[in-house]
Amino acid sequence: MRSISAGAYEPLAQAFLSLLRSGGKRLRPAVALAAYGLFHGPASEKAVAMAAAVEMLHNATLVHDDLIDEALVRRGITTLNAVWSKGATVLAGDYLFARAAGFAAETENVRVVQLFADTLRIICEGELRQLFSSRQWRQPKEDYYPRIFAKTASLFAAATRSGAILADATPAQEQALYDFGYNLGMAFQIVDDVLDYASDEATLGKPVGGDLRQGIVTLPFYYFLQSLPDPEAVLSSLEADQSVARLDSSASADLVAEIVARVRASDAIQASLSEARDFTERAKAALAVFPPGPYRQALYELADYGVSRHV
Amino acid sequence: MRSISAGAYEPLAQAFLSLLRSGGKRLRPAVALAAYGLFHGPASEKAVAMAAAVEMLHNATLVHDDLIDEALVRRGITTLNAVWSKGATVLAGDYLFARAAGFAAETENVRVVQLFADTLRIICEGELRQLFSSRQWRQPKEDYYPRIFAKTASLFAAATRSGAILADATPAQEQALYDFGYNLGMAFQIVDDVLDYASDEATLGKPVGGDLRQGIVTLPFYYFLQSLPDPEAVLSSLEADQSVARLDSSASADLVAEIVARVRASDAIQASLSEARDFTERAKAALAVFPPGPYRQALYELADYGVSRHV
Repeated sequence: MRSISAGAYEPLAQAFLSLLRSGGKRLRPAVALAAYGLFHGPASEKAVAMAAAVEMLHNATLVHDDLIDEALVRRGITTLNAVWSKGATVLAGDYLFARAAGFAAETENVRVVQLFADTLRIICEGELRQLFSSRQWRQPKEDYYPRIFAKTASLFAAATRSGAILADATPAQEQALYDFGYNLGMAFQIVDDVLDYASDEATLGKPVGGDLRQGIVTLPFYYFLQSLPDPEAVLSSLEADQSVARLDSSASADLVAEIVARVRASDAIQASLSEARDFTERAKAALAVFPPGPYRQALYELADYGVSRHV
Repeated sequence: MRSISAGAYEPLAQAFLSLLRSGGKRLRPAVALAAYGLFHGPASEKAVAMAAAVEMLHNATLVHDDLIDEALVRRGITTLNAVWSKGATVLAGDYLFARAAGFAAETENVRVVQLFADTLRIICEGELRQLFSSRQWRQPKEDYYPRIFAKTASLFAAATRSGAILADATPAQEQALYDFGYNLGMAFQIVDDVLDYASDEATLGKPVGGDLRQGIVTLPFYYFLQSLPDPEAVLSSLEADQSVARLDSSASADLVAEIVARVRASDAIQASLSEARDFTERAKAALAVFPPGPYRQALYELADYGVSRHV
C-alpha cells in the first residue's frame, strides 16, 4: 500500500496534505469499511485500498467541482482553485483520479474497478446535466432525485457495494448494501441541500445560498414553491435576473438573500429534513437481512450521522 | 462492448463525436493491437477494449491539455475548450477518463488496469512539473527526456505493454514491447516538438511556436542554444520578457517569431530529427526477439510513420 505522497511531485503532495488535513467527515470510506466488516470484521489490505479509492475519487471530484463553481473556500479553508492556476487545479484533480484508479486496481477485483469507472461516469454525466440545466427554475421535482443520485448517492452506493463485492457477498446481500448506500447517499445530499439554505457561513465553511446563486434547484426550493399561493412571482423574479451569464451563473446577491430568508422562514426546511429521514429509515431497513452486530450497528450510526449534521 | 455515445448525455456525445471525427492518427491503439497481434493475430474483444482505453485516455488528456494551454484550435478544428465553458470542458475530460477506466476494466485484467492508473499518474505528474517549470529557460537538457517520457512515451509504452500482458507474453517479451513503445513514444514526441518549430500553421492545425510561447523548452531549442557562440543573449531576452504571467505564460509574439525563425535556420531541426531516428531504431531493435511476420512488420511501419510526419 502506497501513501498519498509517495512519488508525488512535492508541491502536489503539500497541496493534497493540506486538503486532507482540512477535515471532511470520511463518511464514504467509513461506510465502505463497515459494509466489508459485516462479513469479515477488520478490514483486509484490499478493503483499505477500496476505501482509499472511494475517498480519493470523492476528493478528485471536489477539486474539479471547486474549479467549476469557482469556489474559493471549502470546509472553511481556501480551495486549491483559489491558490493555483486553473491548469494546475485541473491536473491536481486528474492526479487524484489516477490515484483513485490505482487504489481501485489494488483491490485486484475487476468488478470493483468496473463499478468505480461506472460511478465516475455517472458523476460526470450528472454534473454536466446540472451545468447545462442551470437556471432552469421550472424543472420538475422528479428531476431532482436522479440529479442527487448522480452527484452523491452513486458513490455511497458504490462504496457499500464494493465492500460487499470484496467480501464475496451473495447477490441479495450485495443488493442490500447497495440499497443502504443509495438511501444514505440520498439522505446525505438532501441534508447538504438543506444546509445550503438553513446553516450559516461559519458552520458551513462557505457562503449560504450557493446553490441558488449557481442556478441549482434543490429540494428546499421545491417545497418552498409548493408552499406559496403564487409561486409565479418568485420564478419570474429569478428568470428576470439577467445579471449573469448562462453557464457561470450567479443570481444577484439581493435576490438570493431574499429568497434564502423566505425559504428558511417557510416549512420547506422541515419538509426536506423529513424526507431525508425517510431515506435514512429505508437505508437502515435494508440492513435487516444482516444479523445484529457491531458493524451493522456502526452502519446504523453512520446513517443517523448523515442526517444529523448541524441542523 | 459499448459505443462511445451509449448512455452519454446528448450534448456530450455530440461533442465527442466531433472530437473523434476531427482525425488524429490513432497511433496508440494501432501499436497496442499490433503488439497483441504478435501473439494471437486478430484482436480479441478484450484487446479491442484495451486499445479503446488507450485512445480514450489520450483524448481525455487532450481535452484537459487544451483547457490548460487555453488552446482554441487542435487538428485544425475548434477545441471543446473554445466552445464550452471551462467547467463543462473539465467535466468532459473527466467523463473520458471514466470511459477509459471502464474500457480498461473490460479487459478483466488487473495488471492492465494498474498499468493504466500508473500511466495516468505519470502523465499528470509530468504535466504539473511542466507547468511549474514553465519559463525556466536554463533547465538542463537531461530534464527534457523524463518530461517527454511522462507526456507521451509512458502511454505508448503502456499501450504496447498492455498488448503483451493481455497476450500472456513472457517477461522478456513484455519488456521488449515496453522498450518498443517507450522508444517509439520518445521519437514521436521529439518529432512533435520539431514540428512545433519547423512546420506551418496549416499543416500543424495550430500556430507554430506554441511551446516557446508557453515557456516550454524542447529539444530543438537545446540544440539551437548549443549551436550559438553566445547563448546568453537569447536566454536573457527570454528572461527579460515580462509581458506575461508566470503560470499562464506566453512570451511576446515578436520574440517568439524571431527565435522560431532562428531555430529553423539552424542545425537544431536536423540534429533533433536525427535523435528521433535513433529512438526509432532502438524501438525496432527491441522487436528482434520476435520472429518475422505481418504484425512485427506492422510495428516497424508504425515506428517509421511516427517519425515521418510532415517534416
